[in-house]
Amino acid sequence: MEQRQFLLSQKDIPTEWYNICADLGEPPPPPLHPATMQPCGPEDLAPIFPMAILEQEMSAQRWIKIPEEVMNILALWRPTPLYRAIRLEAALGTPAKIYYKYEGTSPAGSHKLNTAAAQAYYNKIEGTKRIATETGAGQWGSALSIACKFFGLGCTVYMVKCSFYQKPYRKSLMNVFGAEVYPSPSEKTDFGKSIIAKDPDCPGSLGIAISEALEDTLKHDDVKYSLGSVLNHVILHQTVIGLESKKQMEMAGDYPDVVVGCVGGGSNFGGIVMPFMADKYAGKNVRGVAVEPTACPTLTKGDYKYDAGDTARMTPLLKMYTLGTDFIPPAIHAGGLRYHGMAPLISLLVEKKMIEAVAVDQIDVFQAAVLFAHTEGILPAPESAHAICHVVTEAKRAKEEGRERVILFNLSGHGLLDLGAYDAYLEDRLESATECDDRRVNPNGKCQAF
Amino acid sequence: MEQRQFLLSQKDIPTEWYNICADLGEPPPPPLHPATMQPCGPEDLAPIFPMAILEQEMSAQRWIKIPEEVMNILALWRPTPLYRAIRLEAALGTPAKIYYKYEGTSPAGSHKLNTAAAQAYYNKIEGTKRIATETGAGQWGSALSIACKFFGLGCTVYMVKCSFYQKPYRKSLMNVFGAEVYPSPSEKTDFGKSIIAKDPDCPGSLGIAISEALEDTLKHDDVKYSLGSVLNHVILHQTVIGLESKKQMEMAGDYPDVVVGCVGGGSNFGGIVMPFMADKYAGKNVRGVAVEPTACPTLTKGDYKYDAGDTARMTPLLKMYTLGTDFIPPAIHAGGLRYHGMAPLISLLVEKKMIEAVAVDQIDVFQAAVLFAHTEGILPAPESAHAICHVVTEAKRAKEEGRERVILFNLSGHGLLDLGAYDAYLEDRLESATECDDRRVNPNGKCQAF
Repeated sequence: MEQRQFLLSQKDIPTEWYNICADLGEPPPPPLHPATMQPCGPEDLAPIFPMAILEQEMSAQRWIKIPEEVMNILALWRPTPLYRAIRLEAALGTPAKIYYKYEGTSPAGSHKLNTAAAQAYYNKIEGTKRIATETGAGQWGSALSIACKFFGLGCTVYMVKCSFYQKPYRKSLMNVFGAEVYPSPSEKTDFGKSIIAKDPDCPGSLGIAISEALEDTLKHDDVKYSLGSVLNHVILHQTVIGLESKKQMEMAGDYPDVVVGCVGGGSNFGGIVMPFMADKYAGKNVRGVAVEPTACPTLTKGDYKYDAGDTARMTPLLKMYTLGTDFIPPAIHAGGLRYHGMAPLISLLVEKKMIEAVAVDQIDVFQAAVLFAHTEGILPAPESAHAICHVVTEAKRAKEEGRERVILFNLSGHGLLDLGAYDAYLEDRLESATECDDRRVNPNGKCQAF
Repeated sequence: MEQRQFLLSQKDIPTEWYNICADLGEPPPPPLHPATMQPCGPEDLAPIFPMAILEQEMSAQRWIKIPEEVMNILALWRPTPLYRAIRLEAALGTPAKIYYKYEGTSPAGSHKLNTAAAQAYYNKIEGTKRIATETGAGQWGSALSIACKFFGLGCTVYMVKCSFYQKPYRKSLMNVFGAEVYPSPSEKTDFGKSIIAKDPDCPGSLGIAISEALEDTLKHDDVKYSLGSVLNHVILHQTVIGLESKKQMEMAGDYPDVVVGCVGGGSNFGGIVMPFMADKYAGKNVRGVAVEPTACPTLTKGDYKYDAGDTARMTPLLKMYTLGTDFIPPAIHAGGLRYHGMAPLISLLVEKKMIEAVAVDQIDVFQAAVLFAHTEGILPAPESAHAICHVVTEAKRAKEEGRERVILFNLSGHGLLDLGAYDAYLEDRLESATECDDRRVNPNGKCQAF
C-alpha cells in the first residue's frame, strides 16, 4: 500500500503557540490610533478585546502556552491529518511530491475553530456574555458559533450579504449552534443602515461587516468583538497547523521546498507558514507562497501602508497591504478571500521578501478544485482551492524542469457548504474576475455594472 | 488533557474483511428466484452484479482479502478516528463511558465509500462501463459517484424524490464527480413512468428507486447495478469499521457492553457490529442494538419472511424483516432509513435474539443530534442521530442504575448536507412519525393525507 498518511496522536497536539514576532529581528510596526496617529496601547483596545488577547496581540514572546481548557477543545478534532496527494501527483505526471495538511476535519469544516476556541475561552474567563463578529463565506461565523456554544457565550454574526444568499446552509449551521446571523449590511446597526440608504443592492464586504460587529460591540455592555483573521493573535493561534505539519513532514522524511496557502486575511496561510519561517530566519532554504484571488489582489496590487481594518474606519490603523477600505470586491464565491487588507505579519514578510505572493483567477481555481476532488476525493472549499491552483502550477513547473520538488500546502477547509459555487462552475455561470473588473456584483453572484 | 482520541495509523487499516456467515453455525437462508422459488445461483444474478461480488455475497469464508487497489482508495481517509464523548457524558451526568467511531471523515461524508470503492473496483476489472444505483438521502449516491470517478466508470443515480428536493446539495456533489442524478420515480424508466401515472405526487421510496436502477441496468449492455446496503457483500465490506473499532477499544482499555448503530438497510450497523458478534458467538457478553425510525419500523413491526428487495419485485426474494414492498414511509428527513426491508444478516441475528432492535421518533432524534453537536461539535447526519438518540437512553439508564456501562456507537456520517432538516427542526416544522401515521408526505416534507 502506498504510504500517503502521516498521522499524529492526541499527545502530539502542540501545547504552545509559536509567535513569529520573536524572530523578526525588530518589533513589527504597531497599530496606530486613528485620532492621534500614536501607537495603540492595550487600554485603547480594551473595550473590544479581552486583556489576554491584547497581551498576545502585542507579545514578543516566542512560545505562548495553550490553556488546558483550550487544549481540551482542540482535542475534539486535532491533530489533523497530513496526506501525500499521490493520486494528484499521478494525474499531473509530475516528479514533485505534493503534501497537504487537511484542516477540514474540524467540526466547523475549516481551520477557523483553532482560534475561535481560544478567543471564546479568553472572553469567557474575563466575563464576556456575548461575542459579535463578521463572516465572509461563513467558515469563521460557523467556527465562532461552535466555540461560543462550547463556552456558554452568546454569538452574533454579521455575514457578508452576497455570501449569506450564496451559502444558506452556513446560516443554518450557525443557528444549530445558537448564533444570531444577519446579512450585512443590515438594519441592525447605524452603519449598516447608512450603507443600505446609499446603495440598497450593496453585496456587502468584510470591511462593512466588521464595522457593524464593532458598532454592536461598542453599544452594548458585556459584549466583545472577535476577528477570525488578520491580527497577530489569530495567526498565533493558527500556528498549531504549521507545528503539527513540521512533525508530520519529519515522519514523511521530507522537508518542503515551498509552503503554499490561500490568503484572505492571512490566518490559514500564516498558521502553516510561520513555523517554517522560523526555520528560514534560522537560515533554512524554504519558500512561502501566499495565493490570493485576482478579484481581490491585496498583496499583488495593493499598497503597503497604514490603513483601517474596516469600512467605517473604527479600527486602529494597521500597517499592511491594502486595496483601501472602500474597495468592494466582486462577489466571487471564495467569500473568505474578499478582504481589502492583509494580516500585518504576512504583509511585513511579503515586504521583506521572505514570502512570495501570487494571484489566481477563479475559473482556474475551480478547475483545480475539481481535479483535486476527482483524484484525492475531498471537495475543497473555494478559498482553499486557490492554494491548490498554485500548487498545480508549481507541480507543472517541476515537471518542465524535470526535478523533484517537495510542495506542502494547507487545505484549510472542505467545500460541502459551498456546493452552490460548484453548481455555478459546472453550469458555466461563473465569470472570471477579469470580466468582472470595475463592476459590481449583485447578491446572486452575477456581475453588474457600477 | 483528557484522553479522548484513539487513533490508528495507515498500517492498521484492515487487510481482510470479516464474514459473519462463517460463524453462524449454519448457512443463512439463501435468496430465492421469484419465478421458481428455488435458491438463486450466481448465474441468476450475473446480469446485474460482477462475479467477484456474487462470490462474496454467497461466501462462507471467514476472512476475505481486500484487493491492493481498494486498500489504496481506503487509505484516502481510513483508518477513521474513535473518540470518547467526554463532553456528552458530562452533559448527561452519566457514569457510562460513551465511545463513537466516526465515519464522517470520508470524502463522501459517511461510511458508504467503504463498499462503493470495493464495488466500483470489481466492476472495473470485469469490464463494466457504467453503474446504476438508487439513493435515499444521497449518502450512497455521493459515495458511489466518487468511487466511479476513481475507477473511470459512469454513474447514474436514481434519488428518492422527497430527498432529492430536501437535499439539493447532494445532487450538486454527485454532479461534481460526474454522476447523472434523477429524482425517482422518474420518466427515465417504464417503472418510474407507471408510478407517476398512478400518483404524480409520489414522494418516492428506496424500493421504487431500486426498481428504476435495475430496469436501467437490464436494458443496457455494459451496465451493472450496485446496492449500498442490505446485501451480504455490502455488510462484508463495511466490517472494516468494526475491525478498526475493536483495535481502538483495546487502545482505550475498554470493551463495549453494548454496540449501537442506526439501521435503514443495515450496512453501517452491520459494519460495526459483526466483528463484535464474532466475539459473542465465541461466548463473549456483548449486546448489539439496531436503531430504526418509528416511521419505518422494519425490525420492530415488520414480519420475518421472504420478500422482494424492490417495489417492482425484480430482485430475488430475501428472507428478512419487511414492511412489504408497497410500504412508502413518510418523508422523514432521515432518508437513508426509509427502506421497507432489512439486511438478511441483521434480520437473522435479530430473529436469533443475538441483536436487539428499537425504534425512535424523529423529534427525539433531532433533540439528541443537537445535544451531540453542542457537546462534541460534530453535526450528525439525521440517520446517525438515531443511534445517538438510543445511546442517550442507554446512558440515562446507566445513571439510574448507578453503574458504569461502556457504550460504543457508530457515527456513520455528518449532517452538513442535511441542514434543511435541522432548519425544519429548529423552526418546529418537523412532525413526529406518529402524527404522520397512515398518511403520505409530499416532497417538501410535510405530512399529507392519503
